[in-house]
Amino acid sequence: MAFEIDPQLQADTHQLGRMSFSHILLHRNSSLPWFILVPETDLTEFIDLPERKQSLLMREATLVGQFLKEHWELHKTNLATLGNVVAQLHLHVIGRFADDPCWPRPVWGNLPAGHPWSAEKLRTIQVMLQTIVPEFVPADELSGS
Amino acid sequence: MAFEIDPQLQADTHQLGRMSFSHILLHRNSSLPWFILVPETDLTEFIDLPERKQSLLMREATLVGQFLKEHWELHKTNLATLGNVVAQLHLHVIGRFADDPCWPRPVWGNLPAGHPWSAEKLRTIQVMLQTIVPEFVPADELSGS
Repeated sequence: MAFEIDPQLQADTHQLGRMSFSHILLHRNSSLPWFILVPETDLTEFIDLPERKQSLLMREATLVGQFLKEHWELHKTNLATLGNVVAQLHLHVIGRFADDPCWPRPVWGNLPAGHPWSAEKLRTIQVMLQTIVPEFVPADELSGS
Repeated sequence: MAFEIDPQLQADTHQLGRMSFSHILLHRNSSLPWFILVPETDLTEFIDLPERKQSLLMREATLVGQFLKEHWELHKTNLATLGNVVAQLHLHVIGRFADDPCWPRPVWGNLPAGHPWSAEKLRTIQVMLQTIVPEFVPADELSGS
């Protein structure tokens, strides 16, 4: 059966494309560059992934984190896999600024509603991702954008 | 200069001991098994660690996660490295229950004050850690316990 991204994640994000192991999503709230990696696996816990797949996922998170650092003037990168609400394994890679709307609190439950990303900015992010993440394949159409 | 754990982390936790790369701390609030790994590095971002050290840290987090699963009836494991408040690199490994005091919200800013761990329970956790984490070395004295 084809891999499907959880409907709640789909509703909350733009699907930008995919890398070797993970789909890259971008949260619709443009207050922050908030990426979510969804690796193609049925396992729901990071610690249950075989070591090779753990490394692959963290390598992809690192590439996205380097992309964040290169294109935004970040104060911090937040990495987290929680899964209390959406069980499907997903890893947040979030760029934080000392003057962002919920600094220094974590984004979950604290980030006020913000403007959506413009279609142009989404395209630009896809193009920029291709320059730093060699295996990035953009989604044909930005889901729901 | 000797490596020092951030004073805020020291104040919030018991220092249980260390593994190859990380010190293992346990948050003083016993509502949840909330471990914090502090790797011996001056880098503050996970994504800036060399790949070998990233793998080492995630391996240690996985061992602690397996220990959690073995000794508590968990609903979920939360893994996160935020660092918005304490800059020193640290990785949360938190066991969550569907009936815990802040489920399904993340613990940060949401977990009500809870009872401290008993000295006996802390010793038991140290002993249990030794059985599942081969390189675990317990702290001579539980800091501040």
